[in-house]
Amino acid sequence: MSYRAPVNDILFTLDEIAVLDGLKKSGDFPDLSTDLVTAILTEAGKYANEVLAPLNRSGDVQGCTLTDGEVTTPDGFKAAYAQFVEGGWQGLQFPEEFGGMGLPKALGTAVLEMMQSANMAFSLGPMLTFSAIEALIAHGSDEQKALYLPKLITGEWSSTMQLTEPGAGSDVGLLRTKAEPNGDGSWSITGQKIFITWGEHDCAENIIHPVLARTPGGPDGVKGISLFLIPKFLPDAEGNPGERNAIKAIGLEHKMGIHGSPTCTMEMSGAKGWLIGPEFGGIACMFTMMNSARLAVGVQGVGIAERAYQQALAYAKDRRQGRAPDIDEPAPHAIIDHPDVRRMLATMKAKIEAARAICLHCATSADEAEHEPDAEDRAFAKRREELLTPIAKAWSTDVGVEVTSLGVQIHGGMGFIEETGAAQHYRDARIAPIYEGTNGIQAIDLVGRKLAMAGGAPIRELLTDIRQTVEDCQTSSNPDLPEIGARLAKGADALEKAAKWLMKPGRDRADSLTGATEFLKLAGDVTGGWLLAIGAVAGQRRLKEGEGDPDFAEGRIDIARFYAETTLTAAPALVDSIRLGADFLPEDEALESR
Amino acid sequence: MSYRAPVNDILFTLDEIAVLDGLKKSGDFPDLSTDLVTAILTEAGKYANEVLAPLNRSGDVQGCTLTDGEVTTPDGFKAAYAQFVEGGWQGLQFPEEFGGMGLPKALGTAVLEMMQSANMAFSLGPMLTFSAIEALIAHGSDEQKALYLPKLITGEWSSTMQLTEPGAGSDVGLLRTKAEPNGDGSWSITGQKIFITWGEHDCAENIIHPVLARTPGGPDGVKGISLFLIPKFLPDAEGNPGERNAIKAIGLEHKMGIHGSPTCTMEMSGAKGWLIGPEFGGIACMFTMMNSARLAVGVQGVGIAERAYQQALAYAKDRRQGRAPDIDEPAPHAIIDHPDVRRMLATMKAKIEAARAICLHCATSADEAEHEPDAEDRAFAKRREELLTPIAKAWSTDVGVEVTSLGVQIHGGMGFIEETGAAQHYRDARIAPIYEGTNGIQAIDLVGRKLAMAGGAPIRELLTDIRQTVEDCQTSSNPDLPEIGARLAKGADALEKAAKWLMKPGRDRADSLTGATEFLKLAGDVTGGWLLAIGAVAGQRRLKEGEGDPDFAEGRIDIARFYAETTLTAAPALVDSIRLGADFLPEDEALESR
Repeated sequence: MSYRAPVNDILFTLDEIAVLDGLKKSGDFPDLSTDLVTAILTEAGKYANEVLAPLNRSGDVQGCTLTDGEVTTPDGFKAAYAQFVEGGWQGLQFPEEFGGMGLPKALGTAVLEMMQSANMAFSLGPMLTFSAIEALIAHGSDEQKALYLPKLITGEWSSTMQLTEPGAGSDVGLLRTKAEPNGDGSWSITGQKIFITWGEHDCAENIIHPVLARTPGGPDGVKGISLFLIPKFLPDAEGNPGERNAIKAIGLEHKMGIHGSPTCTMEMSGAKGWLIGPEFGGIACMFTMMNSARLAVGVQGVGIAERAYQQALAYAKDRRQGRAPDIDEPAPHAIIDHPDVRRMLATMKAKIEAARAICLHCATSADEAEHEPDAEDRAFAKRREELLTPIAKAWSTDVGVEVTSLGVQIHGGMGFIEETGAAQHYRDARIAPIYEGTNGIQAIDLVGRKLAMAGGAPIRELLTDIRQTVEDCQTSSNPDLPEIGARLAKGADALEKAAKWLMKPGRDRADSLTGATEFLKLAGDVTGGWLLAIGAVAGQRRLKEGEGDPDFAEGRIDIARFYAETTLTAAPALVDSIRLGADFLPEDEALESR
Repeated sequence: MSYRAPVNDILFTLDEIAVLDGLKKSGDFPDLSTDLVTAILTEAGKYANEVLAPLNRSGDVQGCTLTDGEVTTPDGFKAAYAQFVEGGWQGLQFPEEFGGMGLPKALGTAVLEMMQSANMAFSLGPMLTFSAIEALIAHGSDEQKALYLPKLITGEWSSTMQLTEPGAGSDVGLLRTKAEPNGDGSWSITGQKIFITWGEHDCAENIIHPVLARTPGGPDGVKGISLFLIPKFLPDAEGNPGERNAIKAIGLEHKMGIHGSPTCTMEMSGAKGWLIGPEFGGIACMFTMMNSARLAVGVQGVGIAERAYQQALAYAKDRRQGRAPDIDEPAPHAIIDHPDVRRMLATMKAKIEAARAICLHCATSADEAEHEPDAEDRAFAKRREELLTPIAKAWSTDVGVEVTSLGVQIHGGMGFIEETGAAQHYRDARIAPIYEGTNGIQAIDLVGRKLAMAGGAPIRELLTDIRQTVEDCQTSSNPDLPEIGARLAKGADALEKAAKWLMKPGRDRADSLTGATEFLKLAGDVTGGWLLAIGAVAGQRRLKEGEGDPDFAEGRIDIARFYAETTLTAAPALVDSIRLGADFLPEDEALESR
């Protein structure tokens, strides 16, 4: 059940696929070097392996408790959080002026993956603080930044994201929490929020709650919503935690997984808060947090899948049953040598690599959108980031569920026994397709907003990039690469065909929504195949130039080829399923169980 | 969280698809009539709805306990079991001479589905007793039949299936439990078995354990294995439970799901037992039990999926969020009207109907294999049963996992909260692809044994039947049916292409094993689509003849069309993935996380 951070796999993705290197030329990251990246990933890997991973199962078994409004996290979490603060991990990707390390978001994303692998329940706390910091940087006043950012960036204070109410989940516009002005610039907020991750806990000395609420006389729906900052303890004149605010946890959920993460029902009874951004500007602020969190949740999918994979791989090498073909030694043979088991492992590995590459490409794009010297390059990167965000979130979390399920399957009966640990990954992974916007909401965002953006530029640009890689594959001297290129070309054609159908002027909204989830799947399948193909091209270059471990480089080609021959081959068949149309959805009567 | 047995859906499948009617002509079921079947399904449905379903969540929360070798099942299980015995449900499909009702297995299978829907953990007990009864009927001595069958068929005594040991799971030939002759025809059995479902419990007055063990001097591997009958209490001269035998539960597993089902580690220390069948004939006896249990586990997949579906459907009608297209009333709208949610529900419904039809067709084939008057018809039915058994088991249990996962997703955040119940279905469902032969083992059975059987007759006959249905669709006056037929024809072509590749003389074993799981998926996808198409043809006939509820009949066509346009459209793309070949499976080096 141990975990070892895949530092070299991540480094390869950052060096060759998501190309962190491109950021160096911006001049905004003077210290950024391969050595530094390697050192940081190695150090973060140690923290994940040695501190967080051992608390994963104990945290699942023990869970959190709520007594008189105080939440106690599982044994060891508080000390692990102190080490997190000490390591400065919360501030990796944030500006040095507020105490951060000023490194790229892509690097912070890579570190987050390791933490999520090691302990998803624990890492949800820091994950939400990341998002709140981004929102404060983008929308907070100078005073708010000065008061809160340094404490959040060290991790001494943590943060939440308070949107959901019992009647307002995907439809946030239905929320009813109310804010009344106090006349001194502060507001008095009253209402109840549910499903608040790390809403209350014993790890940080203060908790800063960004809360969506309605102000008097505002319009109905999302246009009347504002974002408020509500500290658990009101900062005193020196900026230290002072008076206890009227916001508290009144319930903890009993969940299928992530037991170590306290999911709270929060009650505000005239809690004191301040606007973040303008009145009625809550949704824009929320989307800053949400977009950050969506990528981070995608990374959770990668992380939990990697954890499940390492465990399944170790078991498959160790467990001996039956007679495998083409093995000389006497039976029973290690189950990894049974083609069926090896294929499951290959599927897991290929999809993890693809999802990691999608998430890191999304993160690098976010960095480039901010730091590219040229305005057009920044705009291009922003479009790429926005296109990839729903794919990173939904496709990677679906991969998380699929891979953790295969992890259970490879363990056979042992996989269903809680002590083995494989079941926990499967339970933990299942939340990720739901929160921060269900995967259905991601698909609607992709089809409804991202395809239409800038006259369809984001998807056209993606297809152009994919076809460039097809060309790179076709001209390779390695005989595998033109085959990968051929599969990828068909995938790109399918993606284009489906996108064109969806983007056709006058396309009925119900028809495009009917195909949305399948389209997101196709987009993820093809984008993942594209990024693996880039990795294969790089692997071939390394082989040719004698750079690095040839086994590793060959592995990149083998995995890309496997993915191309299994996942990309299925891509063209998705087009019809995307173009289904709402008329083929059965009516209520046909859906009844009778 | 309530459950309502889908009596009419099941009746339709038995009347029009799995065609229970065909059995009537055998003369072996003189009382079999539509009225009787309806009455039995309605009565069993009541038992499932009113007695078993309410104990599902409480059983999950409470679980089982083991104290001094005695297992206590959750509150209410013992009383529910007494009602099971009283209702005579255990004996439905067994001969009247031993106290059964002498009805077809297909009917018993339909009843089992309802029980599994209502309470999967509870129903595992009776399910294993079904299998043991079949093994005793097929392989027991007259004396054993007379002594044990009446008690098992009433359900007063229950049974288990003891195969697995820590070192012998999929590879049963590695088992080490030993049997020594006592010289009086009885044997003394010593060893340990794990993962024994309902191995010990407080519901029945005696437990009959069929146990695989090795006798002295036998050959290694499966050829040296014999099956023993070991009663918990040795029957006295009157056939009542007497002396306590040396077999006991020494541990209970902590599992991800089916908490109400006691999964025991069993220790035999010189337990007294008797051979079932000949010495060294254990594997044949085991397969009688296993094949019965495999179909029954497939039915569990259907049952748990139906339960999850009913709950998700109810939630989707009730929960209102957002603005759905083409709805006149003011938002928020019921989420069932969001195309994305409706599509998930349609996917669930279509796959449940398909899996149910596969399982019931397999069960009816088993009945026909025994009762058809003509020997050739019996042999044909036997081939169909054997071909369908691994598909019924693996495809339906994969559907169980997929559908329960969609059930969680439709509930959004509520789906992850244990009190909702959707999560329990997801946890419970996950065991079914593992036990009674993992789904990988089923795929190996399908590709390695079933395709090769009788010179390939079973798959050829299936394709002939499918193409007959294609023709029936193409000549229909309903415009949907030729479209369904066209998709089905392409599915059949794909299935044939893949089967021919696998069956090609000299095909490398590693290559065919590499494609086994994908082939089973294709076979299930196409067979499911075929049976739904038969249902659509019958629906159209009912519409034309004004028979029954037209909404219901139209629903059969809508669901078949939806399945054809989504699942069958993807079938041709699976062929390449099946023909992948072992060379494309990455080597160990490429699979490492680095």
